[in-house]
Amino acid sequence: MSRRVCVIGGGSSGLTSIKSCLDEGLEPTCFESSDDIGGLWRFKENPEADRASIYHSVIINTSKEMMCFSDFPIPAHFPNYMHNSLIMDYFRMYAEHFQLTKHIRFQIRVLQVKPRPDFSRSGQWDVETENKKGEKEKHIFDAVMICIGHHCHPNLPLHDFPGIDTFKGQYFHSRDYKTAEEWRGKRVVVIGIGNSGGDIAVELSRVTKQVFLSTRRGAWILNRIVWKSPFLYTNIMLVLFRRVLKMAQDILPFGLVCRLGENKINQRFNHSLYSLQPKHRLFSQHPTVNDELPNRILSGTVQVKPNIRRLQGSSVEFDDGTVEDNMDLVVFATGYNFSFPFLPSNMLPVSGNKANLYKYMFLPGLERPTLAIIGLVQPLGAIMPISEMQARWATRVFKGLNKLPSMDCMLKDIKHKEETMAKRYVTSQRHTIQVDYIDYMDQIAYQVGVHPSLLGLLLRDPGVWLCVLLGPCTPYQYRLRGPGQWDGARQAILTTWDRMAGALKTRPSDIPKPKQSSLPLTLTVGAAAALALGYYWNMHNHPSLLIALDPTTWQDKIKPYLPVLW
Amino acid sequence: MSRRVCVIGGGSSGLTSIKSCLDEGLEPTCFESSDDIGGLWRFKENPEADRASIYHSVIINTSKEMMCFSDFPIPAHFPNYMHNSLIMDYFRMYAEHFQLTKHIRFQIRVLQVKPRPDFSRSGQWDVETENKKGEKEKHIFDAVMICIGHHCHPNLPLHDFPGIDTFKGQYFHSRDYKTAEEWRGKRVVVIGIGNSGGDIAVELSRVTKQVFLSTRRGAWILNRIVWKSPFLYTNIMLVLFRRVLKMAQDILPFGLVCRLGENKINQRFNHSLYSLQPKHRLFSQHPTVNDELPNRILSGTVQVKPNIRRLQGSSVEFDDGTVEDNMDLVVFATGYNFSFPFLPSNMLPVSGNKANLYKYMFLPGLERPTLAIIGLVQPLGAIMPISEMQARWATRVFKGLNKLPSMDCMLKDIKHKEETMAKRYVTSQRHTIQVDYIDYMDQIAYQVGVHPSLLGLLLRDPGVWLCVLLGPCTPYQYRLRGPGQWDGARQAILTTWDRMAGALKTRPSDIPKPKQSSLPLTLTVGAAAALALGYYWNMHNHPSLLIALDPTTWQDKIKPYLPVLW
Repeated sequence: MSRRVCVIGGGSSGLTSIKSCLDEGLEPTCFESSDDIGGLWRFKENPEADRASIYHSVIINTSKEMMCFSDFPIPAHFPNYMHNSLIMDYFRMYAEHFQLTKHIRFQIRVLQVKPRPDFSRSGQWDVETENKKGEKEKHIFDAVMICIGHHCHPNLPLHDFPGIDTFKGQYFHSRDYKTAEEWRGKRVVVIGIGNSGGDIAVELSRVTKQVFLSTRRGAWILNRIVWKSPFLYTNIMLVLFRRVLKMAQDILPFGLVCRLGENKINQRFNHSLYSLQPKHRLFSQHPTVNDELPNRILSGTVQVKPNIRRLQGSSVEFDDGTVEDNMDLVVFATGYNFSFPFLPSNMLPVSGNKANLYKYMFLPGLERPTLAIIGLVQPLGAIMPISEMQARWATRVFKGLNKLPSMDCMLKDIKHKEETMAKRYVTSQRHTIQVDYIDYMDQIAYQVGVHPSLLGLLLRDPGVWLCVLLGPCTPYQYRLRGPGQWDGARQAILTTWDRMAGALKTRPSDIPKPKQSSLPLTLTVGAAAALALGYYWNMHNHPSLLIALDPTTWQDKIKPYLPVLW
Repeated sequence: MSRRVCVIGGGSSGLTSIKSCLDEGLEPTCFESSDDIGGLWRFKENPEADRASIYHSVIINTSKEMMCFSDFPIPAHFPNYMHNSLIMDYFRMYAEHFQLTKHIRFQIRVLQVKPRPDFSRSGQWDVETENKKGEKEKHIFDAVMICIGHHCHPNLPLHDFPGIDTFKGQYFHSRDYKTAEEWRGKRVVVIGIGNSGGDIAVELSRVTKQVFLSTRRGAWILNRIVWKSPFLYTNIMLVLFRRVLKMAQDILPFGLVCRLGENKINQRFNHSLYSLQPKHRLFSQHPTVNDELPNRILSGTVQVKPNIRRLQGSSVEFDDGTVEDNMDLVVFATGYNFSFPFLPSNMLPVSGNKANLYKYMFLPGLERPTLAIIGLVQPLGAIMPISEMQARWATRVFKGLNKLPSMDCMLKDIKHKEETMAKRYVTSQRHTIQVDYIDYMDQIAYQVGVHPSLLGLLLRDPGVWLCVLLGPCTPYQYRLRGPGQWDGARQAILTTWDRMAGALKTRPSDIPKPKQSSLPLTLTVGAAAALALGYYWNMHNHPSLLIALDPTTWQDKIKPYLPVLW
C-alpha cells in the first residue's frame, strides 16, 4: 500500500490534497515553490514566473456556500462573494484547523518527477527538488498528487495580431495587470471577454479616457445577483446549481435549455443591443460573470469592439474597419496554458491545453495508479470542492480501496468526453478541461461512495432530502455518508440559508425568510420526487455511468427516467 | 419692456438662460465667478468655496435623451449616460452653436443685487460685481436671472455626531472627495445613502479594506438599466418618464403605485435581505440611482449600517450598538444648502432649504416680476430641460408676454405645494424643492403655451402623437408648437430610439428594433387615447390647474378623467 505521498503545490488543491492524505492515514509532503500557501489566490504585487497572478480587486465569482471545502463551512459573517484577501483568510483557517501547514515545505521547487525503475511493481516515484539556495534533493514517494492548477503560463498569442511589433504603446498579459490608477486618462484596448478581460475592462474604464473591449465572439454575461430568484436565494451560484434544475436540464433538449437561459439573461439587458450578442449558445462557452459591464457600456466608458485586424504605431484597426488612434495600452486577457515540465516529456504531452487524462486526473497508460492531477478542471461552478473530491478519490485509489477501470475503458471515456465537448462547446483552448459541477462531482462521488442517497434521504430525513433536491448543491452533500462522512454535514445543509443571509444582516431590518406559495412547492416536490426516483434508479442500475457515458440524444436522455415517469 | 438681463452663473442653467434671452430678443450679461462655463459639471481637482464640486468618476444619472436642451439633441454617438467630461463637451457645443460665450463675463463675482429705488415703476435692479483684482463695478439691469443652482454650501451637520471632535481619523464632506486611490487599504464610513453617498461608498469599496455605509432610513435603489423594459428602451429614464405611465400614476392610488414600483425594484434584489429596506414608500424619497451597490454589498466590500450614535477616538458606534474600530475616514455625504447672499437679507430668506417661491422661481411679493430663480429644483428627472423651460417662461414674463397670477394665488399655490410635499415625502431638507419632471414641465409649458397638444397631434400627426404619448417624454416635445417652436422637434422625437441605440452599436451585430406583440399595443393605445382625451379636456377646461392645485384624494384624481372614461 502507498504511504508517502508527494503533493506538488500549496494552493487550494494542494491544501485539500494534504487534508485528504491525512484523512486516509497517508503521509503527505507538500512542496511549495513560494513562501506561503494560497497559490493563485495570494495577491502578489509582482507576478512570478510560471505562476498565475491576480489583480488587486479580484472578487471570486462563486458563492461561499458553493466554493467551500465540504467539511469546513465558511463562517456566516464572511460575505457571499469574497475578496481574494478573505479567500486567503479562509484557506489559512482551513490549514490551521486541520494542521496542514506542518506538512508543507516552502520555497522548494520540484524539478523532476519520474517513475522509479521498479515502478511496475512498487508504483513509486523519484522526485528531485531544489531549494532557494539551489541545493538539490532526491526523494522517493509512493504516490504523487500534482496540484499546480492550470493558470501556469500566460497565453500571449502575439502572432495573431499583425503589427504588434510596431505598437508604440505598452502591452502586457492580464496577469501583469494590478491596479487601474496608473492608466488614468489613457486609451486602452482589452482583448478577450473572459472573466479577467471583463473585470479589467470595467475597472480600467473608471479612470481611463476610454476602454475598448475587443471580442471575436461576444459573450453571454451573467450577474452574481439573480433577478427574481426562487427561494430568495438571490445569488446565482445558489440558484443555478441545484439538482432539480440539473435533472430538468438533463431531460430537456440542449437548445431549449439554452433558449430559456438566454431569454432570462437578455431580460437583464439585451445582448444584441449592447453589441455583445454571440453566435454561439449560452452553454457553449464558459460563462463570463460581470456585474457592471452592461452599465459601463451604457455609459460609453467601455465600448465593445470586434477582433483586432492589425496594429500600426499607436493605432488599432478592428475587423469592422474602424480605427482607434492614440492608444496607450493593449491588455491581452487571453488566458493561460498549462504543462507539466517536471514529468518525463513523453509521459503527459499537452497540446493546445489538451491532455489525455481519465476524468482529468489519471494517466490511462500508467501501470500503477499512483499519480493524480488535482484541480485540472475548469468547472461551471467552484473548483475547490471539486479538487477536494478528486483528492478524496485519488487517495483511496492510491490505497487500493477504489479501483480504476481498464485502460480501454478509460480511453473510451476520454474519447467520449472529447466528443461531447466538441459538440457542445465553441472550439477554443478555453474549453479543453470544462466540467459541469454537479455532473462531475456526482461521477467522482459515486466512485468514492459518497454520493448522497436520494431515496435513503427521502425515507430517513425528508427535510434534508428536500434541501438536497431543491436547494443549492452544496459540497456538504458529499459528506452525508460513506468514507469521510462528517457529522456536521446535515446541519450545514440545513443552515445554508442562515449563513447566506447572515452575511447581509448588518443593519436592523426584517430579514425575510425564504418562502413561496404552497402550490408551486407541491408541484415541484411532486415532480422532483418522481425525477429523483428515476435519477436514483438510473445511478444505481446503470454501471455504464461509472465511466460517464453521457447520453447524447434526446431519447437517450429521457430513457433512464422512463420507468418512473410512466 | 425689460431689455437688459443679468444672468448670475454660467452653469447649465445660466447657459440656457442666456440662450432664452437671445431667443426673446433680450440682452443678457452673464457673470460667472470662475474662468469657465459648466458650473457643477466642470471637474476641478480642488473644490472652491461656495461652489459645488464633483468627484472624478461622476456619471450622470439621467439619460442623454432626457437631459438635453430641447432644441439641441445630444449626438447619437454620445453614450446614453455621460461621464462629466462629456457633459462638459455637450455644454461647450451648445454654447458654441448658439454663440453664448460672448455674453459671459468670467471671473466676475456678484456682490449685491437690489431693487432700484424706482423699482415699483421700472422693475430695475442695481447689481454690484467684483473682478478677480477686487475691482468693483455697478450695473443697472432690467431683470435678473439667478442661476447658481442649489449645491452651494456643503451641509456638514457635525453637531449630530457626538464625539466627532475626538475622532482620530480624517473626515470631510463628499464635495471634497475626488478619487479613491489615496484610501487604499483603509477603513471608511460613508454617511448618507443619496446619490453621492452611494457612488462614493461603491468607489471606495474597490480599494479600501472596508466601507461602512451608514444610513438612518435606508433607501430604494434604482439601476440605470431597467430589467425587461417595454419597447427595449432599456434605460430607466426612457422607461419611467412617459406620459402614459404618468397618467396611470395620476389615476391609481399613491400606495398602489409605490407598491408596484417597490415590487419591481425588489425583484432586482431584495432590499430587506440586503439591509437597505426603508420604512418609507418608494416615491416618498428622492431616489438613489446606483448600479453597483447591491453587488458590493453581496461581496461584503460595502456593509450597510444604521445611523452613527457616537464616535470616540478611532471607533464608531452605530445605533444598533455595534462598534467598528480603527476607522481612518468619515465621509459626510449629507448634501448641500443653498442661499442667496447677494440679495437683500429680508427679500428671500432661506431656512432649512425652504424658500418662499412661486414654482420655485418667482418671489410672490415683488411688485414687478423681473427676478427669476432658474434651476432651483430637485427633479425626479433631469434638471437641464427644466431650467430651460423656466428660462423660456421667465424671459416672456420679463417681456410682459406672460402674466403671473395674483400674489394671493401664488401664495396659495406655494402653500398647497408645501402641503402636498409634506404628505408625500419623508421630512428632510433634501425634499424642499422636489418636482416631478413631466408634471412640472407641463405646468410651465402650459404657461408659455408650448405644451404638446395631444388632440391636435392625434389628428394631424398620429405617429408623433404615439411617440409623445407612449414614448419617453423628451424635451423636444416642448418645441413642437408655440413660442420657440423648433422645426427639428418632430424629427428629434421620431429618432429618439436611433440615438439611444446608436451609442451602443460599436460591434457588428443585429441591433433589434423596438417591438412588441400587437395585443398589448392595441390595448395600450386604446386606453391611452381615452386617457389622453380626458387629460387634454382636463388641461384645457380646468383653469385651476394654472396654479397646479394637485388633486389630493383618489376621487379628486380620477374625477377629471371621468367624462371620457364613462
